[in-house]
Amino acid sequence: MLSHVDARNRPAMVDVGGKAVTRRTARARALVQLTAEAAALFADGELRSKKGPVLQTASLAGTMAAKRTHELIPLCHPLPLDHCQVEARLIDGGVVCIEATASAEARTGVEMEALTAASVAALTVYDMVKALGLGTTIREIALVEKTGGKSDFRSAPLPPTRAAPRAARAKSSRSR
Amino acid sequence: MLSHVDARNRPAMVDVGGKAVTRRTARARALVQLTAEAAALFADGELRSKKGPVLQTASLAGTMAAKRTHELIPLCHPLPLDHCQVEARLIDGGVVCIEATASAEARTGVEMEALTAASVAALTVYDMVKALGLGTTIREIALVEKTGGKSDFRSAPLPPTRAAPRAARAKSSRSR
Amino acid sequence: MLSHVDARNRPAMVDVGGKAVTRRTARARALVQLTAEAAALFADGELRSKKGPVLQTASLAGTMAAKRTHELIPLCHPLPLDHCQVEARLIDGGVVCIEATASAEARTGVEMEALTAASVAALTVYDMVKALGLGTTIREIALVEKTGGKSDFRSAPLPPTRAAPRAARAKSSRSR
Amino acid sequence: MLSHVDARNRPAMVDVGGKAVTRRTARARALVQLTAEAAALFADGELRSKKGPVLQTASLAGTMAAKRTHELIPLCHPLPLDHCQVEARLIDGGVVCIEATASAEARTGVEMEALTAASVAALTVYDMVKALGLGTTIREIALVEKTGGKSDFRSAPLPPTRAAPRAARAKSSRSR
Amino acid sequence: MLSHVDARNRPAMVDVGGKAVTRRTARARALVQLTAEAAALFADGELRSKKGPVLQTASLAGTMAAKRTHELIPLCHPLPLDHCQVEARLIDGGVVCIEATASAEARTGVEMEALTAASVAALTVYDMVKALGLGTTIREIALVEKTGGKSDFRSAPLPPTRAAPRAARAKSSRSR
Amino acid sequence: MLSHVDARNRPAMVDVGGKAVTRRTARARALVQLTAEAAALFADGELRSKKGPVLQTASLAGTMAAKRTHELIPLCHPLPLDHCQVEARLIDGGVVCIEATASAEARTGVEMEALTAASVAALTVYDMVKALGLGTTIREIALVEKTGGKSDFRSAPLPPTRAAPRAARAKSSRSR
Repeated sequence: MLSHVDARNRPAMVDVGGKAVTRRTARARALVQLTAEAAALFADGELRSKKGPVLQTASLAGTMAAKRTHELIPLCHPLPLDHCQVEARLIDGGVVCIEATASAEARTGVEMEALTAASVAALTVYDMVKALGLGTTIREIALVEKTGGKSDFRSAPLPPTRAAPRAARAKSSRSR
Repeated sequence: MLSHVDARNRPAMVDVGGKAVTRRTARARALVQLTAEAAALFADGELRSKKGPVLQTASLAGTMAAKRTHELIPLCHPLPLDHCQVEARLIDGGVVCIEATASAEARTGVEMEALTAASVAALTVYDMVKALGLGTTIREIALVEKTGGKSDFRSAPLPPTRAAPRAARAKSSRSR
Repeated sequence: MLSHVDARNRPAMVDVGGKAVTRRTARARALVQLTAEAAALFADGELRSKKGPVLQTASLAGTMAAKRTHELIPLCHPLPLDHCQVEARLIDGGVVCIEATASAEARTGVEMEALTAASVAALTVYDMVKALGLGTTIREIALVEKTGGKSDFRSAPLPPTRAAPRAARAKSSRSR
Repeated sequence: MLSHVDARNRPAMVDVGGKAVTRRTARARALVQLTAEAAALFADGELRSKKGPVLQTASLAGTMAAKRTHELIPLCHPLPLDHCQVEARLIDGGVVCIEATASAEARTGVEMEALTAASVAALTVYDMVKALGLGTTIREIALVEKTGGKSDFRSAPLPPTRAAPRAARAKSSRSR
Repeated sequence: MLSHVDARNRPAMVDVGGKAVTRRTARARALVQLTAEAAALFADGELRSKKGPVLQTASLAGTMAAKRTHELIPLCHPLPLDHCQVEARLIDGGVVCIEATASAEARTGVEMEALTAASVAALTVYDMVKALGLGTTIREIALVEKTGGKSDFRSAPLPPTRAAPRAARAKSSRSR
Repeated sequence: MLSHVDARNRPAMVDVGGKAVTRRTARARALVQLTAEAAALFADGELRSKKGPVLQTASLAGTMAAKRTHELIPLCHPLPLDHCQVEARLIDGGVVCIEATASAEARTGVEMEALTAASVAALTVYDMVKALGLGTTIREIALVEKTGGKSDFRSAPLPPTRAAPRAARAKSSRSR
């Protein structure tokens, strides 16, 4: 008796057809812990590896990935991004701090676009410095804030031992 | 005298610029005839092959393909899908029945999105059970209904020998 | 007690690392049943719709899709296609018969590439003639033959009521 | 003192969130100088190479590429194209003249979509005739006109030695 | 005096043309900290959100992303993956632990493929449970081991304070 | 009498299955004529527009596009690129000179990969400076050399009026 087997619980996109189009923004952050060898490449606002300028390349890769979020994340809707920007800079402790912002007029939020941009930028940093140590680690990827949906969101400030430049440096000399 | 050669009959997207944005929906169906060996894998609402859960994977592949319809079908417009869902279940006769629905607010219909979702889901079923017999066959891919354009469409009920569980079972015992 | 939860039955690509590289070929077929209005467009070996030459466009779309099979079918391996060709012609009964062949030197077969090519070519036919009737139906997509793996495969000849021009014409006048 | 390093001058998409949605159109042109061997393939409005009909294929490739402009050009916005058409014809002097038009209701222009369509169509011509001489050259890719933004644009007429059929033929016999 | 401006320091793929083809493997891990609401969805080896089965979907999304690594990471080479598998399970502390393995016969390593698979699987988990709290955080993405290049790599065991809040630490000292 | 209609002259990939795998290289060049306003942005080896560093971004976009050549050009084979590099610099006359090199061990050449890289880099330059004048023009895209196939190719030196910095400057002041 095979018929009438239920199709419940198949993965499905949320139907956003009935939702209002509003202006949506999101910001996400990724932190990449470099090895000491990689961090030493830093000069004049850029990490220059053999493959080229690391932060510039990561920034561009993240921006391009944001536009393909719906191809990568199975149940994300395609969204008409109005803006995407990915900033990358070195903070104390040999950490690259990446911040990605995205915005669109849409029926659903752009969190995944910002998170995807930050993630691919972080992976690109990894790729460009991995010849200087495979111990490079993406330490965190998180949403920082979003606006435009049912309720806004703003993350709690990072705990001091994670991203604050000074503490992180101290910690990294202890535990890695 | 080569100049003024006409460029007539080059393929071109229909210009939908003057059409109104309306809510469009479409539903398509694909039927995949499994081999007896593959059908025997079925239990608890899922076909579990060595590669993993077949219906779940097919469902997801179809949903992801819907978003890329305009990349695959040369003259399709890119559409901002609001929803896509692909259901897959086993019906009598060892047939996987896939139904894909899609919707968008757009100037043109989403038939091709629903049909592409159903087709790629069917191909994914094939891929995951092909180790159990290459005689697996996609028996039909067709539009079931659409709304939102100049006129709605609803397919005629399938003739009894094609999809009705009972008849199909009978037939399959005769001719395959 | 959450730990020790098993990760069994996640979908996974088959590991082909240990298999030999051999020359693989596959051929797949799709049949598209046109409406009478669409079939009447046929002249000089081509169906010319408002969107352009149908069979030519379908052939190209299928070839391009074959190269992206691994993007569409979740557990397919990326393969270095040496060749892909998609032929499309009108047979009796208002049926477009599409045959796609693919080949590669690879560790696994190219069945899915041939089937994907045939499917996307069939969908493209649908897209280009759908203004002439949404009752167009993809009647079948199946593997015709393959070589180069553990064992070769050749499909049984199609039963006469399905693809043989004469019978199909008769049937289509009865049941559609 | 690594902290507070500035992230200035990272590449970023222009934020078009505050701009009005208007109807945008653009037209771009590419000229491909064929070798004499390739130009001799021309008959009945088409160049037929061993790979197939050149102008038809180029036209389709250009149209499909327009839809992927935002994937290729890093800081382009994804745009909901309402229309894209690519015409290709042979003009005197053995030059293929490609004209691509694109339109959308959007917050930013479709120039890059038209230029990308023309460029990929030109590259496709190259690919299909390159067996007849690698000296094929894309002689020019330029915007012809655009409407719908802050100000319209229309290129100056081409200087007579570049595209006018007669002069180009004369010139090509002298200098190539 | 603009000429002779140097093109130094443009980003460029490493030329692997002279390197030997060897069997490459890599394994990467991502940890996703769920909110308590999301973790409570767990039952029978799966997290079932409104969007569908989370771990299954994430696993598939990661596998598919691995195949597109070279499209996302600007200077990665396209590699003929022989295998990719992404396992996802819930460990103590409401953490989803994702492990991605990849392998290929290639001139360069598959680290980025494994890391991309793990990252996109983690983003997919985020997407599917974000309705239950935007405080979900990807806590770590790192390479676990690789083989087949100039030298093998195996990461140091995770420090106890990183991967397992409290219970996990206990567990990890027991079972790892 | 519809049956037996011939499928001749459908576009098809060349079957390279019988060809030997050899090391292939290609180099292509694109010239982009900037407007005076855009050329004036040049300083320290880079053009810095509001959107970011132009030459760096173009270089990266070209490299990434090379990897997707087979997706864009319908009858190109997917090739396992070992290397791709895109250099961009400003030469006299306000011309950006882009040189793209590509290489692979393959059964067919990498000309299209080098040409696609050069073209997309040129389009990216256009996109980033178009706010400074839509009169920017891609003046030429051509193959410079290739090795590894049946016969090597090296283009004739450019005629002095086209690319030589000095003459080009003189000419551009006269005729544009």
